[in-house]
Amino acid sequence: MVAPALLGIVLAGGSGNRFWPLSRRDRPKQLLPFAGGASLLRRTVDRLEPLVPKETLFVSTTLELRDAIARELPELPRERILAEPEGRNTGPAIAWALARLPPELSSQPVAILPADHWVDDAAAFRAALASAAATAAQRRVVVTLGVPPARAETGFGYLEVDTLPETPVAVPVRRFYEKPDEETAHRFWSGGRHLWNSGVFVFLPEVFWSQLERHQPAIARMASALRGGIGEEAAAELYAELTSVSIDQGVMERLGFGEVWTVPLRCGWSDLGSWEALATVLAPDRAGNRSRGDVVAVDSEDNLLFADAGTVAVLGIRGLAVVRSGDSVLVLPLERSQEVRRIVAELGRAGRRDLL
Amino acid sequence: MVAPALLGIVLAGGSGNRFWPLSRRDRPKQLLPFAGGASLLRRTVDRLEPLVPKETLFVSTTLELRDAIARELPELPRERILAEPEGRNTGPAIAWALARLPPELSSQPVAILPADHWVDDAAAFRAALASAAATAAQRRVVVTLGVPPARAETGFGYLEVDTLPETPVAVPVRRFYEKPDEETAHRFWSGGRHLWNSGVFVFLPEVFWSQLERHQPAIARMASALRGGIGEEAAAELYAELTSVSIDQGVMERLGFGEVWTVPLRCGWSDLGSWEALATVLAPDRAGNRSRGDVVAVDSEDNLLFADAGTVAVLGIRGLAVVRSGDSVLVLPLERSQEVRRIVAELGRAGRRDLL
Repeated sequence: MVAPALLGIVLAGGSGNRFWPLSRRDRPKQLLPFAGGASLLRRTVDRLEPLVPKETLFVSTTLELRDAIARELPELPRERILAEPEGRNTGPAIAWALARLPPELSSQPVAILPADHWVDDAAAFRAALASAAATAAQRRVVVTLGVPPARAETGFGYLEVDTLPETPVAVPVRRFYEKPDEETAHRFWSGGRHLWNSGVFVFLPEVFWSQLERHQPAIARMASALRGGIGEEAAAELYAELTSVSIDQGVMERLGFGEVWTVPLRCGWSDLGSWEALATVLAPDRAGNRSRGDVVAVDSEDNLLFADAGTVAVLGIRGLAVVRSGDSVLVLPLERSQEVRRIVAELGRAGRRDLL
Repeated sequence: MVAPALLGIVLAGGSGNRFWPLSRRDRPKQLLPFAGGASLLRRTVDRLEPLVPKETLFVSTTLELRDAIARELPELPRERILAEPEGRNTGPAIAWALARLPPELSSQPVAILPADHWVDDAAAFRAALASAAATAAQRRVVVTLGVPPARAETGFGYLEVDTLPETPVAVPVRRFYEKPDEETAHRFWSGGRHLWNSGVFVFLPEVFWSQLERHQPAIARMASALRGGIGEEAAAELYAELTSVSIDQGVMERLGFGEVWTVPLRCGWSDLGSWEALATVLAPDRAGNRSRGDVVAVDSEDNLLFADAGTVAVLGIRGLAVVRSGDSVLVLPLERSQEVRRIVAELGRAGRRDLL
């Protein structure tokens, strides 16, 4: 099975405050370098080559981030950075981007790719994506990449399959599961028949349009009008009236058995959804501390210690994230990393836009 | 009993790394403002007036700190800032300073005063000091100020008395105790017959010289030579040969019953010996957090949160010191504040003089 030519739409519109104080309004997660070097967006784009050549790569983002994205990807022609008129979650955003692709490319499969995930093994990632693209074209189905769970995670959606292949070949998805409770997550983890929904998926445009029409007719109408040539301004008015909905909840989870397939993705994947998730992709020292920057740790274990400016010194602490970024310092238990949003909300209420 | 004219020698030679990263080599504890406003040294000097007028006030310090002290106390003539030739702890330092006082002042009692302590009620402090000075002159004894214990502290030396007066009147000290274990500290705290040794004491110079000769003859010889006019350079050579010893261990604890008296000091005193001690003099908010600077605390209790630059944000932590000072961040449990020295030592070993 030879993979057909593949288009890529990289989703880079997230505002991401889960990495505050490292992430800010004008520096969302996808533009941050983690674990050194290039930004997540740059890594996402580079890891696709040669499977998705730069010539068939598009980036979906917001008006606010368009310039920053263009600076980060100077090789990408401006017309391939597609800014959604306003934020309506991934359902409308993907439809908007897809509708603006050049018509001559509409017969090729398209990969939808979050810009802010972590991948250790780029070759393994491309192998899974190529397999997904082949299945998407041949069977005319939506194909997601599914990650064999590394732990009993309650923060992800899951895909159920009948059997989990050892190699990156597609199998049909039996069911979608929303974020499970701890007991269920443990069952999924140990059972070997569930996969994390990575958020990467591939389809032929015509397949997507027909599913969208079935499950999200309002979004489909907006996209159809845009493809029909009503112009961006008129389309933006339709867009503004859409309800925010994710592609998962709005379309994927509504598809029947046989309409969605998945390819197991074994590549050291992380969604880097929090400081805790970041810790899992950094190598620990002998005390279990994961450090970046100028850090001194005495008698401390299992912490994430991060300094992009100045020096962080700790003594006698365990299981904390201590983050110095720019002019701000964050300290919280790693297991409560998700709650950094509460600090961001607090700063918002206090009118501290200087810190956001 | 009218207090006689009183000289003051403020001990401001400490290098103090217990408040790292706030304290640094060139900015020791006594030069830091705590709880806002003036430095501890400035507060120490100001609180003595009018009991010890500026005209009879001397400051003992090191060569390294002499200029910084002069900047902090511009009203003080340079010749009253007495720099010990090198560090030999408080025993030699006090003898050196005392030997350099003008001979015409030698019949007046002298108060020795640490520059880096905290006092809430300056009037109560002066009342106790005046009482101590009167007793020192009249009975020709050494008189310390003793603090009724606020907790079962194991980090201080204690004075035992037969009865503890309710007012600032002097009583003889029965015994000195070195830092006690927890059980003993608890007994001292609940028994009502022990006082913390505050480090403030008063004596007539001739009384001090005769005790020094008895208990520290080498120091006494150095001081005698200096008073006899051998010149500072020659005296400095003698000084260099002295053993480091504190005035408490070298003299005070060796005095017999009746030779040392104490006046109870009830003035909201703290030695500010650590971040934990600092926390006790700052007012807590409803969650028990004590904060200085730009601080955001969510779901956090009983922390010391300190930022002299930038912003400190915390969530879900308890009982920690989180300190941002200059370019450095420190995080440790408040109850382990004393161990900040281990971080300073670690930085020293790593050659990080830029941070010390």
